[in-house]
Amino acid sequence: MQELKEMIRRDGIILPGDILKVDRFLNHQIDIGLATRIGKEFHRLFEAEAPSKILTVETSGIAFAITTAQQFNNIPVIFAKKYRSMNMDPDQYTADAISYTRGGAVSLSCAKEYFSPEDRFLIIDDFLANGEAMCALIDICRQSGAKLVGCGAVIEKSYQAGRRRIEEQGIKLCSLACISAMDENGIQFQDD
Amino acid sequence: MQELKEMIRRDGIILPGDILKVDRFLNHQIDIGLATRIGKEFHRLFEAEAPSKILTVETSGIAFAITTAQQFNNIPVIFAKKYRSMNMDPDQYTADAISYTRGGAVSLSCAKEYFSPEDRFLIIDDFLANGEAMCALIDICRQSGAKLVGCGAVIEKSYQAGRRRIEEQGIKLCSLACISAMDENGIQFQDD
Repeated sequence: MQELKEMIRRDGIILPGDILKVDRFLNHQIDIGLATRIGKEFHRLFEAEAPSKILTVETSGIAFAITTAQQFNNIPVIFAKKYRSMNMDPDQYTADAISYTRGGAVSLSCAKEYFSPEDRFLIIDDFLANGEAMCALIDICRQSGAKLVGCGAVIEKSYQAGRRRIEEQGIKLCSLACISAMDENGIQFQDD
Repeated sequence: MQELKEMIRRDGIILPGDILKVDRFLNHQIDIGLATRIGKEFHRLFEAEAPSKILTVETSGIAFAITTAQQFNNIPVIFAKKYRSMNMDPDQYTADAISYTRGGAVSLSCAKEYFSPEDRFLIIDDFLANGEAMCALIDICRQSGAKLVGCGAVIEKSYQAGRRRIEEQGIKLCSLACISAMDENGIQFQDD
């Protein structure tokens, strides 16, 4: 997605520890026009898979899960919870993920009642790097017995293990901006 | 908003500690059609205030901030962060809030770069009860010198202190479903 790549080049900040900070339009301030067009692009890429629900994880995935769901005629969005809350359902699916930006393992959880074997889940997240969060969401889908029809990431760091981990499970994966290298000289995208 | 009140009556669960759980359409699974119509309703209520940016707080406010921003011709959404992250800006506005559903105080923070004196902020959140989170967002706006044009809550517990705390600051507040009482007999809305 050309517009997205241009925004990453213009407004992305590379931080120590191989972190790409895109707080200006994606992770803290959200560019809503861009977010809506991202939803349209995911719809184009996954239309044939006819998802019936979208699964994401709090926080930054929610915006793009919503704009994608709008394009699929308002299918429901479920976001996995990362943080304990007093009013969480006791009857949950859980899966662990290592978070590099937060440090340490986090346990993602979803109430079981939102999953049924008839569901066709599309997983949407903001970033795909080592694939920890996305593999945990895949694990939750598997536990539930629902069908997983694909995974979409807004930004992928293609030089990390995430894509391989997902594709070797036979899952369709589409990312809208694939970064092949990132260093003091700037950001290279895979298809440039 | 009649549709919202009907959904709260049908799918809301009252938990001990005066907690209203609306995970089926708002806090865990999101009904995207409803969320889009909530955005249209906030647009109608705040159109005259001509906001230029929307401020919310992770996690559950984000969905409704986005659908509202879409109606205002895609103005940017900024979400205050509750949780520490390695790549947060050092240059922040912060304000504390007590969270009843999570237990204890949380510190909300926003990078300063997204606030300017020319901005006209509309604050949107999912719940208004004691007003802790919303007052922290108001405080962040004040610190920044930006203009605050109003506050919108999807669900308000009108018998708690939040509305009074906001209105006594002279701020316009609109909630889409105002609960006047909630107990084992069910949920009463203010305008029923």
